[in-house]
Amino acid sequence: MRIDRAAVYDLLAEYGALIDMMKFDEWLGLFAEECRYQIVPRENFDRGLPAGLVFCDSRAMLEDRIRALREANKYNIHTDRHIIGLPRICDNGRRIDAPFTVFQTDQEGETRLFATGLYRDRLEAAGGRLKIRDKLILLDTFAVPSLLATPL
Amino acid sequence: MRIDRAAVYDLLAEYGALIDMMKFDEWLGLFAEECRYQIVPRENFDRGLPAGLVFCDSRAMLEDRIRALREANKYNIHTDRHIIGLPRICDNGRRIDAPFTVFQTDQEGETRLFATGLYRDRLEAAGGRLKIRDKLILLDTFAVPSLLATPL
Amino acid sequence: MRIDRAAVYDLLAEYGALIDMMKFDEWLGLFAEECRYQIVPRENFDRGLPAGLVFCDSRAMLEDRIRALREANKYNIHTDRHIIGLPRICDNGRRIDAPFTVFQTDQEGETRLFATGLYRDRLEAAGGRLKIRDKLILLDTFAVPSLLATPL
Repeated sequence: MRIDRAAVYDLLAEYGALIDMMKFDEWLGLFAEECRYQIVPRENFDRGLPAGLVFCDSRAMLEDRIRALREANKYNIHTDRHIIGLPRICDNGRRIDAPFTVFQTDQEGETRLFATGLYRDRLEAAGGRLKIRDKLILLDTFAVPSLLATPL
Repeated sequence: MRIDRAAVYDLLAEYGALIDMMKFDEWLGLFAEECRYQIVPRENFDRGLPAGLVFCDSRAMLEDRIRALREANKYNIHTDRHIIGLPRICDNGRRIDAPFTVFQTDQEGETRLFATGLYRDRLEAAGGRLKIRDKLILLDTFAVPSLLATPL
Repeated sequence: MRIDRAAVYDLLAEYGALIDMMKFDEWLGLFAEECRYQIVPRENFDRGLPAGLVFCDSRAMLEDRIRALREANKYNIHTDRHIIGLPRICDNGRRIDAPFTVFQTDQEGETRLFATGLYRDRLEAAGGRLKIRDKLILLDTFAVPSLLATPL
């Protein structure tokens, strides 16, 4: 697969923006029909431990997860802001690594660092568009600072 | 308007860099002759409330604002650092959305998160260069953590 | 030198990623044979004061420094996450300015803002690849929040 750099950058920008705007249906549309979405603490990943915080291996499962998150979100009202750094295009474009941070703002208006980590994405071209086939989110901490109420 | 992606990226990078270097005259030069600059808490914007923290609808007004900020800045000495994430090119290039964070460092050398939000820019090509015609800054919080002494 | 924008973006992304993965030998490989690496508080730089926190003017010296850091790192175990913002290509591509933040996560799993600043790089094309000839790291604070145990 010949990598289209602009399309990769756009996909990452859209990924963060759609979560931040709480457009979760459009966000789901960024994933391929057959996809995987995982959140794994980096420490576990480095040690080869399989235990993740979230594991979805189909889009249906990811949809369920999002529905549950939305429910949880009612008790943890906040907004997100994703800042995604310049991505690294690895393995001839078969893998994209992009560092990210997420800030959350609560109802009192306080903004806090919520999470930092690395997106490790495998993409596929489907119908003239890039889609996420496999998203591995390596979270820098095993101690998620508060209820995980929106996708990372 | 056919979007020149490189020019958009450069404009955003320059925007943040010029504020961080306190080169406010050059920063003003990034705006079109007829321009608008607004800072609105995201919550107000989402509810359709017009109240913003800053509203300038001409470059002269923006210049005045900057002069006032510089005066205020004498009592709140700090330096800024903008980190602007990958932009989303919307609406066939007529709108650019870019997430940002600003960190501030005070005279004691302490660096703190100052603000997070989204730039929503409408650009125009003028004299072979892209200029900002309309900049809407959607701030994630209504509670600006301290005196707004430099432009966002 | 005609700037290859994609190569600049890739080099910056790789720079941060290799530190975050603690691949310091590969990281050293991003520098030209003859190179300089400096960390200078922005305040000193603005006042023309030469005093820096780190000064290496050869790759051998940088290697030594990294070895020492790794030793120090045993007593300050943490992981890094670099977020590098959109770079500004200055001076017809002879200079690259890129804002950065580094977050650190300690063994208790707490993630904190560690540093913000600006990379000011001079690059050279060597063997078909871009290499760093001179890296000046302008740190926003003179008060480095804790032991500098990994390169910035």
